Amino acid sequence: MVGGGEGAYIGNIHRISARFDGAFQLVAGAFDADAARGHRFAATQGIDPTRSYDDFKAMIAAENGREDRIDVVAICTPNHTHFPIAKAFLEAGYEVICEKPLTNTLEDAIALEQLVRETGRFMGVTYTYSGYPMVHEAREMVAAGKLGAIRVVQVEYPLEWMATAIETAGNVQAAWRTDPKRSGRGGSVGDIGTHAYHLAGFVTGLKLEALTADLASFVEGRVLDDNAHVLLRYEGGARGLLWSSQVALGCSNGIRLRVFGEKGGLTWFQEQPNELTFSPLFGRTETIKRGADDLSEAAKARTRTPPGHPEGYLEAFANLYRGFAEAIRARREGREATAIGLNAPTAYDGLKGVAFVDAVVDSAEAEGQPWLKPYAV
Amino acid sequence: MVGGGEGAYIGNIHRISARFDGAFQLVAGAFDADAARGHRFAATQGIDPTRSYDDFKAMIAAENGREDRIDVVAICTPNHTHFPIAKAFLEAGYEVICEKPLTNTLEDAIALEQLVRETGRFMGVTYTYSGYPMVHEAREMVAAGKLGAIRVVQVEYPLEWMATAIETAGNVQAAWRTDPKRSGRGGSVGDIGTHAYHLAGFVTGLKLEALTADLASFVEGRVLDDNAHVLLRYEGGARGLLWSSQVALGCSNGIRLRVFGEKGGLTWFQEQPNELTFSPLFGRTETIKRGADDLSEAAKARTRTPPGHPEGYLEAFANLYRGFAEAIRARREGREATAIGLNAPTAYDGLKGVAFVDAVVDSAEAEGQPWLKPYAV
Amino acid sequence: MVGGGEGAYIGNIHRISARFDGAFQLVAGAFDADAARGHRFAATQGIDPTRSYDDFKAMIAAENGREDRIDVVAICTPNHTHFPIAKAFLEAGYEVICEKPLTNTLEDAIALEQLVRETGRFMGVTYTYSGYPMVHEAREMVAAGKLGAIRVVQVEYPLEWMATAIETAGNVQAAWRTDPKRSGRGGSVGDIGTHAYHLAGFVTGLKLEALTADLASFVEGRVLDDNAHVLLRYEGGARGLLWSSQVALGCSNGIRLRVFGEKGGLTWFQEQPNELTFSPLFGRTETIKRGADDLSEAAKARTRTPPGHPEGYLEAFANLYRGFAEAIRARREGREATAIGLNAPTAYDGLKGVAFVDAVVDSAEAEGQPWLKPYAV
Amino acid sequence: MVGGGEGAYIGNIHRISARFDGAFQLVAGAFDADAARGHRFAATQGIDPTRSYDDFKAMIAAENGREDRIDVVAICTPNHTHFPIAKAFLEAGYEVICEKPLTNTLEDAIALEQLVRETGRFMGVTYTYSGYPMVHEAREMVAAGKLGAIRVVQVEYPLEWMATAIETAGNVQAAWRTDPKRSGRGGSVGDIGTHAYHLAGFVTGLKLEALTADLASFVEGRVLDDNAHVLLRYEGGARGLLWSSQVALGCSNGIRLRVFGEKGGLTWFQEQPNELTFSPLFGRTETIKRGADDLSEAAKARTRTPPGHPEGYLEAFANLYRGFAEAIRARREGREATAIGLNAPTAYDGLKGVAFVDAVVDSAEAEGQPWLKPYAV
Repeated sequence: MVGGGEGAYIGNIHRISARFDGAFQLVAGAFDADAARGHRFAATQGIDPTRSYDDFKAMIAAENGREDRIDVVAICTPNHTHFPIAKAFLEAGYEVICEKPLTNTLEDAIALEQLVRETGRFMGVTYTYSGYPMVHEAREMVAAGKLGAIRVVQVEYPLEWMATAIETAGNVQAAWRTDPKRSGRGGSVGDIGTHAYHLAGFVTGLKLEALTADLASFVEGRVLDDNAHVLLRYEGGARGLLWSSQVALGCSNGIRLRVFGEKGGLTWFQEQPNELTFSPLFGRTETIKRGADDLSEAAKARTRTPPGHPEGYLEAFANLYRGFAEAIRARREGREATAIGLNAPTAYDGLKGVAFVDAVVDSAEAEGQPWLKPYAV
Repeated sequence: MVGGGEGAYIGNIHRISARFDGAFQLVAGAFDADAARGHRFAATQGIDPTRSYDDFKAMIAAENGREDRIDVVAICTPNHTHFPIAKAFLEAGYEVICEKPLTNTLEDAIALEQLVRETGRFMGVTYTYSGYPMVHEAREMVAAGKLGAIRVVQVEYPLEWMATAIETAGNVQAAWRTDPKRSGRGGSVGDIGTHAYHLAGFVTGLKLEALTADLASFVEGRVLDDNAHVLLRYEGGARGLLWSSQVALGCSNGIRLRVFGEKGGLTWFQEQPNELTFSPLFGRTETIKRGADDLSEAAKARTRTPPGHPEGYLEAFANLYRGFAEAIRARREGREATAIGLNAPTAYDGLKGVAFVDAVVDSAEAEGQPWLKPYAV
Repeated sequence: MVGGGEGAYIGNIHRISARFDGAFQLVAGAFDADAARGHRFAATQGIDPTRSYDDFKAMIAAENGREDRIDVVAICTPNHTHFPIAKAFLEAGYEVICEKPLTNTLEDAIALEQLVRETGRFMGVTYTYSGYPMVHEAREMVAAGKLGAIRVVQVEYPLEWMATAIETAGNVQAAWRTDPKRSGRGGSVGDIGTHAYHLAGFVTGLKLEALTADLASFVEGRVLDDNAHVLLRYEGGARGLLWSSQVALGCSNGIRLRVFGEKGGLTWFQEQPNELTFSPLFGRTETIKRGADDLSEAAKARTRTPPGHPEGYLEAFANLYRGFAEAIRARREGREATAIGLNAPTAYDGLKGVAFVDAVVDSAEAEGQPWLKPYAV
Repeated sequence: MVGGGEGAYIGNIHRISARFDGAFQLVAGAFDADAARGHRFAATQGIDPTRSYDDFKAMIAAENGREDRIDVVAICTPNHTHFPIAKAFLEAGYEVICEKPLTNTLEDAIALEQLVRETGRFMGVTYTYSGYPMVHEAREMVAAGKLGAIRVVQVEYPLEWMATAIETAGNVQAAWRTDPKRSGRGGSVGDIGTHAYHLAGFVTGLKLEALTADLASFVEGRVLDDNAHVLLRYEGGARGLLWSSQVALGCSNGIRLRVFGEKGGLTWFQEQPNELTFSPLFGRTETIKRGADDLSEAAKARTRTPPGHPEGYLEAFANLYRGFAEAIRARREGREATAIGLNAPTAYDGLKGVAFVDAVVDSAEAEGQPWLKPYAV
């Protein structure tokens, strides 16, 4: 692991997820920009001191020389460092798991995604919500035609914790999210809007044709957007609305997807992730429960407990890790991956996310509210 | 009453609402374009046969000559006839209650609204959702500053019953809604989007600065939109999203409003109208119940039963009727109206609705997705 | 109408309900124990002064002499006066609509129910919750075997407004409810437990075999129970739990029914009365909406608006009134009642309610917690 | 670990929970009654083959002789074997984590609980629901007096998966649950009713004074109860209702607690475990979210992610494991446990559960429905 040391929220999430199902062992790392602090942290994790490194370059150099060198590196550093770190590991032949966004600029994202293809390494990007079993169930239902042709997509990700200028009051998490140098061009749209965009595309399988966006920065002094409204037009004619907000009082991590097709509609809400509702044309709305016997293999492969014993965010994250492990193993073993290893979010998904942010900001900044198509869809 | 005879859904709703609280008596009418059928219907309502008229002109002529002439006429005819009928009654000195939309064209709406001002008569337009007590509570909360400056408005009105081409399969309600001659330029946006637009403006008190819209007609053969996505910019900087849809499988009359301000957020959903949630800045979300002791006079005046005994759509509609009655009486008596008579939806609200539809369609039809400001806001 | 004058909550509910569908006209009454106040109230209702009576005896005497004498009397007086008033009207040949409970003592209830049978008059008792369309739908589903043999019944009616000693602080509604002289032997169990008991029996069609009960009076100084827990055994083997409470903080009028059979389960909650959920054996839970096309005639006859436009308590109450009207008309015309007139709550239902309270109190007061069977089931 | 081998549902849950936070390492086990199968399973878990034992006796004998002997054993065997295994480990000086129920008979439970006290070892019993952070929050709220004196407790645990005779159709999980030899005297009441009973006692801190119960076996051929209704009387005057059911169609693991006091009411539902509602006397119901800043230390110590990222059953189970670890460490280090180590469910809780089942069955079997007090409360 690179980054994710003491006090790092997402680093801890990655570690819990990695050991959840026993598919990974954390054996080496460069956990902190402050090397000494990184070493102290490594000790708390039971890492062999010789494999706690000063920085990622030292890590690559040393691991390269080991028989038992790591297979996969997880990158949990600030966004603007994803690119050089991922590049170095890929070029050294390692598989990579990376936090989203892939990179802070579209150029870097394009380059990195190309590098992944050239090296043939695996690069997984943690679009967490695609780890939820009922999100896979929704995707399978759409793919199986249960909704018919998709007409309307409503997706949103509102939250409230950045509703005041906490970035100037010592909140580290808010500070980097509101700093263009560390977060790129997108504020809410980059932080959470990309999750919503990925979720909508993941479930529907639709590709974006064009978007037009309206961004706002409500909190005084904030440079990046903290609220984004985006009109979506998908190839084939479906239309969508995307809303992301960091100032939506009352909302915690309210990512919600509603998809309406010719033959059915479905809804999923991350805060009650064990359920999916399905509304067949002029029929009764049904509640589909995680763990039910009649679900898809994709959903079953991502569930551990029976219906009614809720699984949540960490289980979803752990599903990504299990999926990455299986995807890597299957490739190495030259076989097809089993259900858990299919449809893992990749560098290309990461590229799409960065391209989406770029197009949204371009659209919002332009005069005359043009419809734009992202670089990659 | 003009229109609203046998088989008319909305006519029956108007009659139930009018007698709900005993504020009106139905004593005369021209209930049907087919005069004989109208007379038969009048008989079922206990109307004096001499006051069942062949058409609205006969009605005005005859009522003008009576001592006990009607005070108020309710117009429940197809949209495109609202204008001439309302005009005739207003010019003859009657007060008018009219279904929305006010008219089918912006020109007519402008003219009619001006006529109302010139005649000094009352003209109420049945924007039903502003009859709900908890909608008034929300409005009072915003007005009292409990949300602080408004930042974000999310409003939607999805429904499903027009998801197939039922207009070509004998459904009368769908037939006029999808016919530009009878419904004007707006499909879903005119039928239900205007309700959503009115609700958002009613609660927040915000005036629109500009909008940009994307319309779609998903059902084959449908000319008017059956799905509308609208970006909203309000004066003062608030941003909004409006969605109306007639093809949203699983949704019945899902009009829902969420408002987020600097100090609080609130949500209201028409299908559970007795509750309002309020989320103070970084505090706990509270459920506010209709009937509670600490509500505003505006809400209390519109409630009949204690918390937990649900009131619904008909009570809301009846509240409009009570409000119209009180507004008229107060004006006639030269006094201020009591709470029930305040903030009744008027001809100007009707004009705003027609202007909104016009701007939405203009925006959607234009190249380059321009931001437009409706004629009246 | 007898009783229900100025300030009477339930009297107003009866009047709204009676005129809701135009089935009744209020033409005469003895509205108040204080005759002068009753006459003033009658004037506000547009009652002919000659038909505003000093008391119910004067009312019967005078109405008997009129050609246009009333058909039906609604009794909205305090519980302990139901018996003599109903008796007098029945014996004079009038039909009667009476608030629940039928009477305050089992003896009176038995006598009154017998009198109804002897006179052949109609006596409707306003068990309000059986006026809801989705309650009828539930009943029809059970009757049609969709749940199979019933195994378990869970019914509850919690509320909060009597959680403190408001009866000693001027609350008139609480005062009579906590006074054995005016309310009989039951506190919460009489006031609201009987509603729950009726609802459970109405939907399931089951007859009680035995009960055992535990009563408590939590509020200081309160003589009657304000919380009741009752174990139910139904004929045929089904088991049930009934809970009524006047001290359940957070609950408004939370009457809720859950029924579990061999083949399906269903739930209904009065505060969201437009929905019913149905869970077929090992299948997906479905939400059934009031107004849907595939509902029973019993439900359709009790609905006025399409799905998504909520109907509530007053509509349910009005359905009882429409049902009483149709039941009376059908009997007078010697024909079968249409759907709205079927299964109206009768004097026998009222008797069952009084018998239930009696058995509950007997069980709770006895040593050794015996299983008792109510007098009438 | 003893038991919990191949195909064992609960064994897997224990393992995930144990490694969740890195507090335990699985290093030895006797995983299966079929020793060979147990060894095969051990290999899949990376267990040193010399520490995969034929049975628990061999395990104790061998581990006793090791320097690096295990600290704690987790017992995941069938219920009727808990007693001898736990006894043997305790007597050999090990700490024990045991699935509920503690034992199958009251005598064994009494003896085992006494043994725990005599040996001074720690014995944790996995009453899972007390691992949820919002359950701890509820307990802290009650303890802090926010509800005032408790009046009414409503607790239930309905599920549906045993609604047919699956025990005779090859379902292993159902087979032992319905077999008195393996499950003791309680059916649903032992399997899930004890969870409900523990949850109610855990949150309220109340001790039972007496109970009276009604048991039913609805599924043909089933000997043990599959539905239990229990009236509860707590010391100090609070009253309760407990319902457990294995035949409640539509319910998955619907354990729900509602507590009503003089000053407030609260509700918690395991299927949406990240929320708690609190209703102050005559105030507005508030939703309290896991992860909020103003929660108790007890809740915070059991939470890993911010509000809106749901945690579930496995996190709760892992919290028990972390709590056991901390409780053991604190005792060994002679210090007070930190928040995570407090209030862990112990052998005494296990004894109370067994005593509860015993009293429920005694009450149900007796004539005249007596009020009984369990052996331990």
